[in-house]
Amino acid sequence: MHYIKDFHEGERIREVYLCKNRTSAVTKNGKSYDTLSLQDRTGSIDGKIWEPDDPGIEDCDKLDYVEVTGEVTSFNGALQMKITRVRVAREGEYDPADYLPVSPRDNDEMYGELKALIASVKNPYYNALLTKLFVEDEDFVKVFRKSSAAKSVHHGYVGGLMEHTVSVAHLCEYYCKAYPILKHDLLITAALCHDIAKTKELSSFPENDYTDEGQLLGHIVMGAQMVGDLAAQIPDFPKVLLTQLQHCILAHHGKYEYGSPKLPALIEAVALNYADDTDAKMEIFKEILDNNPENKGWLGFNRMFESNLRATLGELE
Amino acid sequence: MHYIKDFHEGERIREVYLCKNRTSAVTKNGKSYDTLSLQDRTGSIDGKIWEPDDPGIEDCDKLDYVEVTGEVTSFNGALQMKITRVRVAREGEYDPADYLPVSPRDNDEMYGELKALIASVKNPYYNALLTKLFVEDEDFVKVFRKSSAAKSVHHGYVGGLMEHTVSVAHLCEYYCKAYPILKHDLLITAALCHDIAKTKELSSFPENDYTDEGQLLGHIVMGAQMVGDLAAQIPDFPKVLLTQLQHCILAHHGKYEYGSPKLPALIEAVALNYADDTDAKMEIFKEILDNNPENKGWLGFNRMFESNLRATLGELE
Amino acid sequence: MHYIKDFHEGERIREVYLCKNRTSAVTKNGKSYDTLSLQDRTGSIDGKIWEPDDPGIEDCDKLDYVEVTGEVTSFNGALQMKITRVRVAREGEYDPADYLPVSPRDNDEMYGELKALIASVKNPYYNALLTKLFVEDEDFVKVFRKSSAAKSVHHGYVGGLMEHTVSVAHLCEYYCKAYPILKHDLLITAALCHDIAKTKELSSFPENDYTDEGQLLGHIVMGAQMVGDLAAQIPDFPKVLLTQLQHCILAHHGKYEYGSPKLPALIEAVALNYADDTDAKMEIFKEILDNNPENKGWLGFNRMFESNLRATLGELE
Amino acid sequence: MHYIKDFHEGERIREVYLCKNRTSAVTKNGKSYDTLSLQDRTGSIDGKIWEPDDPGIEDCDKLDYVEVTGEVTSFNGALQMKITRVRVAREGEYDPADYLPVSPRDNDEMYGELKALIASVKNPYYNALLTKLFVEDEDFVKVFRKSSAAKSVHHGYVGGLMEHTVSVAHLCEYYCKAYPILKHDLLITAALCHDIAKTKELSSFPENDYTDEGQLLGHIVMGAQMVGDLAAQIPDFPKVLLTQLQHCILAHHGKYEYGSPKLPALIEAVALNYADDTDAKMEIFKEILDNNPENKGWLGFNRMFESNLRATLGELE
Amino acid sequence: MHYIKDFHEGERIREVYLCKNRTSAVTKNGKSYDTLSLQDRTGSIDGKIWEPDDPGIEDCDKLDYVEVTGEVTSFNGALQMKITRVRVAREGEYDPADYLPVSPRDNDEMYGELKALIASVKNPYYNALLTKLFVEDEDFVKVFRKSSAAKSVHHGYVGGLMEHTVSVAHLCEYYCKAYPILKHDLLITAALCHDIAKTKELSSFPENDYTDEGQLLGHIVMGAQMVGDLAAQIPDFPKVLLTQLQHCILAHHGKYEYGSPKLPALIEAVALNYADDTDAKMEIFKEILDNNPENKGWLGFNRMFESNLRATLGELE
Amino acid sequence: MHYIKDFHEGERIREVYLCKNRTSAVTKNGKSYDTLSLQDRTGSIDGKIWEPDDPGIEDCDKLDYVEVTGEVTSFNGALQMKITRVRVAREGEYDPADYLPVSPRDNDEMYGELKALIASVKNPYYNALLTKLFVEDEDFVKVFRKSSAAKSVHHGYVGGLMEHTVSVAHLCEYYCKAYPILKHDLLITAALCHDIAKTKELSSFPENDYTDEGQLLGHIVMGAQMVGDLAAQIPDFPKVLLTQLQHCILAHHGKYEYGSPKLPALIEAVALNYADDTDAKMEIFKEILDNNPENKGWLGFNRMFESNLRATLGELE
Repeated sequence: MHYIKDFHEGERIREVYLCKNRTSAVTKNGKSYDTLSLQDRTGSIDGKIWEPDDPGIEDCDKLDYVEVTGEVTSFNGALQMKITRVRVAREGEYDPADYLPVSPRDNDEMYGELKALIASVKNPYYNALLTKLFVEDEDFVKVFRKSSAAKSVHHGYVGGLMEHTVSVAHLCEYYCKAYPILKHDLLITAALCHDIAKTKELSSFPENDYTDEGQLLGHIVMGAQMVGDLAAQIPDFPKVLLTQLQHCILAHHGKYEYGSPKLPALIEAVALNYADDTDAKMEIFKEILDNNPENKGWLGFNRMFESNLRATLGELE
Repeated sequence: MHYIKDFHEGERIREVYLCKNRTSAVTKNGKSYDTLSLQDRTGSIDGKIWEPDDPGIEDCDKLDYVEVTGEVTSFNGALQMKITRVRVAREGEYDPADYLPVSPRDNDEMYGELKALIASVKNPYYNALLTKLFVEDEDFVKVFRKSSAAKSVHHGYVGGLMEHTVSVAHLCEYYCKAYPILKHDLLITAALCHDIAKTKELSSFPENDYTDEGQLLGHIVMGAQMVGDLAAQIPDFPKVLLTQLQHCILAHHGKYEYGSPKLPALIEAVALNYADDTDAKMEIFKEILDNNPENKGWLGFNRMFESNLRATLGELE
Repeated sequence: MHYIKDFHEGERIREVYLCKNRTSAVTKNGKSYDTLSLQDRTGSIDGKIWEPDDPGIEDCDKLDYVEVTGEVTSFNGALQMKITRVRVAREGEYDPADYLPVSPRDNDEMYGELKALIASVKNPYYNALLTKLFVEDEDFVKVFRKSSAAKSVHHGYVGGLMEHTVSVAHLCEYYCKAYPILKHDLLITAALCHDIAKTKELSSFPENDYTDEGQLLGHIVMGAQMVGDLAAQIPDFPKVLLTQLQHCILAHHGKYEYGSPKLPALIEAVALNYADDTDAKMEIFKEILDNNPENKGWLGFNRMFESNLRATLGELE
Repeated sequence: MHYIKDFHEGERIREVYLCKNRTSAVTKNGKSYDTLSLQDRTGSIDGKIWEPDDPGIEDCDKLDYVEVTGEVTSFNGALQMKITRVRVAREGEYDPADYLPVSPRDNDEMYGELKALIASVKNPYYNALLTKLFVEDEDFVKVFRKSSAAKSVHHGYVGGLMEHTVSVAHLCEYYCKAYPILKHDLLITAALCHDIAKTKELSSFPENDYTDEGQLLGHIVMGAQMVGDLAAQIPDFPKVLLTQLQHCILAHHGKYEYGSPKLPALIEAVALNYADDTDAKMEIFKEILDNNPENKGWLGFNRMFESNLRATLGELE
Repeated sequence: MHYIKDFHEGERIREVYLCKNRTSAVTKNGKSYDTLSLQDRTGSIDGKIWEPDDPGIEDCDKLDYVEVTGEVTSFNGALQMKITRVRVAREGEYDPADYLPVSPRDNDEMYGELKALIASVKNPYYNALLTKLFVEDEDFVKVFRKSSAAKSVHHGYVGGLMEHTVSVAHLCEYYCKAYPILKHDLLITAALCHDIAKTKELSSFPENDYTDEGQLLGHIVMGAQMVGDLAAQIPDFPKVLLTQLQHCILAHHGKYEYGSPKLPALIEAVALNYADDTDAKMEIFKEILDNNPENKGWLGFNRMFESNLRATLGELE
Repeated sequence: MHYIKDFHEGERIREVYLCKNRTSAVTKNGKSYDTLSLQDRTGSIDGKIWEPDDPGIEDCDKLDYVEVTGEVTSFNGALQMKITRVRVAREGEYDPADYLPVSPRDNDEMYGELKALIASVKNPYYNALLTKLFVEDEDFVKVFRKSSAAKSVHHGYVGGLMEHTVSVAHLCEYYCKAYPILKHDLLITAALCHDIAKTKELSSFPENDYTDEGQLLGHIVMGAQMVGDLAAQIPDFPKVLLTQLQHCILAHHGKYEYGSPKLPALIEAVALNYADDTDAKMEIFKEILDNNPENKGWLGFNRMFESNLRATLGELE
């Protein structure tokens, strides 16, 4: 497999890629041409078909796997591909796993950590709720283990949701040791459940886009409701335990303008907000640094951090 | 019944009132005294017990109905009562209806209007949902008809929630005529349901204060969930109709900082936000004007309107 | 007449359109070309002249009516026109009414409603002021009936200002019924006058752009001044009635950052602000929906609503 | 005359003061007492009448000049007066000039400077407008020369409006020298006119409070209108000169939230905004420092400056 | 020692306390009285001297240790003390350690942890800088170990600054394990240095108030300068290491409005901001919960969290 | 020398310019081309090399002085140059002074004014500090006299920093006369020092870009530190004089969001903030007007002024 991240100018390519999108346009001289957005799990590139009527150019569509032939060129400093032949690939000619970005962490290992976190929750009601969702509900587990944590911002890859969830829960475990006033079982349960409705807010790969339900209701409200539905199936689930758990989920974005309808009122809700925010920001900054492997200086202005970002320099480990 | 709004300085009183609160303090000279917050449906007044050890001063507590004897005095421009005797009243000595503020509109008449609004909703699913809640669920209906729309801001009296709900729905009916692009059945259903969880967010009179659940989750999220639970009981309720209705409820405050986790994305959600906001502001301003019957000039600075308010003058009808 | 909204790719066109603008540029290969912004009352399109030195390409200028010959093509998903011949049309070859967007409502009918609203104002001073402006001042009436309510945001067509004015006043009439504390005559007079200075803030069609005076002073302040000048011509006009009317006009945008130098301090000023805002937002959303006749899903992010907007789905009337 | 600023604890007083306000209250022991807000041009003090029924206590009212007899005491660190006798003073027993705060600058001298500034304006239309207002309109001149620039914030004394006006215009003259691109005649005319409607926004001393018109319309809009009315009386006044002058007045607060309906769009409008703001802030800080003659350290948190303020220390001239 | 937190109404007291402040006032009846703000390490209380001329009332002043005799009373729901005798205590009659709030953690143990953190920094320059400050500069160490982290907000007790510093550094150590992209030596050095200038911003106990230098410059800028002065003493300290360390200190408040002149641009600066913020908020919430040992419900609205806070309920560990 | 500001379409050019940047790209037809950003002290222009493989096209790089041959063309309304030959110029073929924008004011004259300002500071410590920096430190003086005041916003040319500094100090001298409460020596010293660290924040011409240190620390904090280092070299420099001077520098941007870690707390700090802001805004507006010599109307929307700007019209001097 010839991965996109390894492309360099002048290279000739013949390989299968996922076509994320296809658009048509005309040049300023009035000539039609097509653009294919090609993707594999290492990156993406635009492919240009300057002669769409050539016999080697077969029909293909959004989300097809296509075999393209052509040459890597450069335009305005970015690589693109000049495609001379294209056809839809047949199943068996490619392995879908090569075309989706995936978490750098092993999926089974993360799931094992998640189950250990559940085991650490001694409160029988919270433990039952977590078990019912993360162990017994096989449909949910299958989707959850494959989901991304976001459309694009951070952990935007297969397994990213579980990676983020486990990382947040581990940070919460550290908090519980450092600040013993925190109620461990509530905080860990909330950490594990805080983003469960992202499985509904985003469609699965390769689309990975907002669903209608996701846009109209959002994962925060849907997550609180999922937890409420689970608790309703567990006999005698104490109302105060449910309400506090739902509150932590509703408040986990920490600010109204980030979509939380309630601001954190419990110390565990405050802690979850910090853990979620810290983990997301560390991952976002890491992805920026990873995308600039050779950059020694400034990484440019970033709207989320409201600052020019910079790789740390000097001889430091 | 001697109503509080009719008190004037120098008057001697002997009557039963609701004691909303009781506190103790000492004067600057070191003498103890008590303060009773007395209320009837026309207003409230502070009663001072300067000699709490006098034989005529019997024990009483928050939310008791108490018979007080004393004289109306004035302090810093406001009336208060100097209490010389107090005792807990026996049931039968008073009619609770005299002690709670009530809507100026007839309760049965408003409920009739509400049922007519339900009848105007032709979509069978929305009609079924409304009927199940506002007609068949007798416990809900009983609470709903007595609830206030707010702790203190507007419509803060028995029947206020229904008065506000019907008024918002009528304004939405006008909108539907003026802007035919609006979907009548969605908008009216959303108008009738937008504040239903205020029955859970606020405890009933005479306390009328936020519940734990209300503070931790809020009536916006709880309302969306109530509607979801109702739809689950109606066979084949189309998901898109439910999601759009829940969206209107979630978005009805119109801004993140007012607790809506989603901003209005449907034209009906925009319309509901305007109807709710217009009705609330008109009622708030009306209550300010009603509380200043003789005021000819400025009504003082109001934080909600961010302005000095003023009664309209001149010979105008 | 071949209307722009009916264009489809590949079609050949020979028709007169209004030229809103003309610009020159060179392609990346160094060739010069021209762009004409063409408009009729149904829409607008860019026309490209790739060979500006061809004999069929005659001189023309901004705001000329031009007869163009060419073919409809597509560029980056939008239609454009490849023009091979162009010449300035002679008067008589076209009907100007075909080239300006106009209100969907009948102009005379709206003006009749406006006069009925004036008749409903019983206060003699307000009635005289309205009559002087909307009936007796023929120059104003002529301009007012043709004006748009905005440069582009909403009601941006011939008659749009009157349509918006009447719609706001009708909504205010509903308010007066629903909230009897409102002073009908002040509110209706203010509703009819709130945007009168838009006739000065915007130049008339086809330019419909901000005037110098409009940019430097704004229709809010100019409107208050117009009303002051009118009142000065009516003997014994009570000062309090004028001041309150001017206040409603100054405050009708409701917020400082929208250009109101005073926030609403009278209940009628609050009501006018809601009526104006509701009508504008309903019209804006309606125009968005009208521009997406076949769209079943999201309409994209809208800055004014700060949300992704969406057409309401499901079987609903 | 025994001035209030010279009072010290324990002193016995018998003197005439202006009574700005009178209120009644009862102590915690139920005894009635009255408070008179007494003022002269050097300061103000609260006078307490603990025995309002004593024969020496005669009736008096807000804005009376009263002769009071009593002793200076201290309460919570501030001086107050314990009044044992009070009566309304007769005309002739006092000189009103002793009771109003006045500008430290000579009124005639400032008016001379103002006329010199007018003379420096060579443009005949602007010069005519200024002359008509500041020289020929004797009623206006009389009020203008006595007015304060604000209710309390800065220059809140007789002559304060003229002092501020002249100071702002002088600063603008400096700007014209330092930044020759500025149009001198527009800037000086705007500087002289920017606050002229404060003569209408505030009632005259001793009340010096917002008028109804001032609250509902504000001095910014009223000032633009006054200038418009003046220009209408001058033959052939060029519209562009009027519009630009009105723009400078409308924009002189510099921000929407400070009540300017337009932000500065001309360089002279920007300059006027800086001159007005600089002069106001320097005067406000000066008044704070003057009120703390012995303070060596922090002057406390000030909301306008959003900072703890401090007197500058060290041996510095 | 009779600690203030153990006082109850009606109790008679005779004990030495620290007098934080003394003020005089008069009652509404014109009688003078004094208020002493008394403090020990467990809390504070107001003491009232109703008869300041009694022979048992001796002179005393702010920051004296005084022996007071009197009775605990209650006023407006809070305890106060009615003082009948007071005198300045002699050295030896009291132990200053009883009068200052101190960290619950052992001072030597925390200092040991701090030295272990320094030892973990392998970079020779950062290690040298930390050693020079936290080990070799005995004057600094003495002050640092006694300082509070804030005037009142959090860790406002002896040793609080070191407790906060060590806690933040430990959280950063966890981050380094969880996010290996972080440069350990930079982050730990920055964590240990981020608040060092609080030793200059706040005066030492018992005053513990802002110094002039602290108010005018602030601990953020002073801290960056201290680190610069230390680096200047270490031969060949690489400029990039110093600049990055100073940046982390300047940016550690994370937002301009919290006094950081630069927003975090390095991932270590982002991490330090989260660690500092998390630790401060956890401590603040803990102190709120500790101050309400019996509270089962809401803790009231808190401005910093912009929410009604609440103790977590239910059977949870 | 053929200056860029004098170019007109169709002209043929052969001249040396500074190459600020060089980039490569491909046209939509797949042809490579290069773009040179050419600059002289009068302006800048893009030069296009459509045939980069032609023999006349020699290698050149960013910041080279290059001799280009070609023709001036127009693209999208802006001029550009079609380059047919290019080569790196030899030293001696050009005068660097022709290629950098320079202050319109004479450098020696400005430096003379600066020294006169220093002489006006009578306080020996402030005078010594200023002399040490602006007279005795020859390296600093050399850099300071050449520096620009900003990367692009205002005074972005050689000598711009000194021009701005002197202009701000002169405005402060006017303030001292108009508001005698100001301490002249502190204010003038602070005015002269407020931007001294811009010599470190920006690299020198022709780059004139932010340095690493500038981005991470900023000229505000670096300036305070420079002043601190200077004071350390002057025996017995009073701490209060240093702290107040550093405060004025730290606070001179006036708002947190503009990078000041402290808001002005001294009246001189307030004055410096106004002087700096006024001078910057006047210069910015002047540069906008200068760039639109023939514009009679609107200058377009400007983000800094949040307004459409406009050249003042009418017959005005």
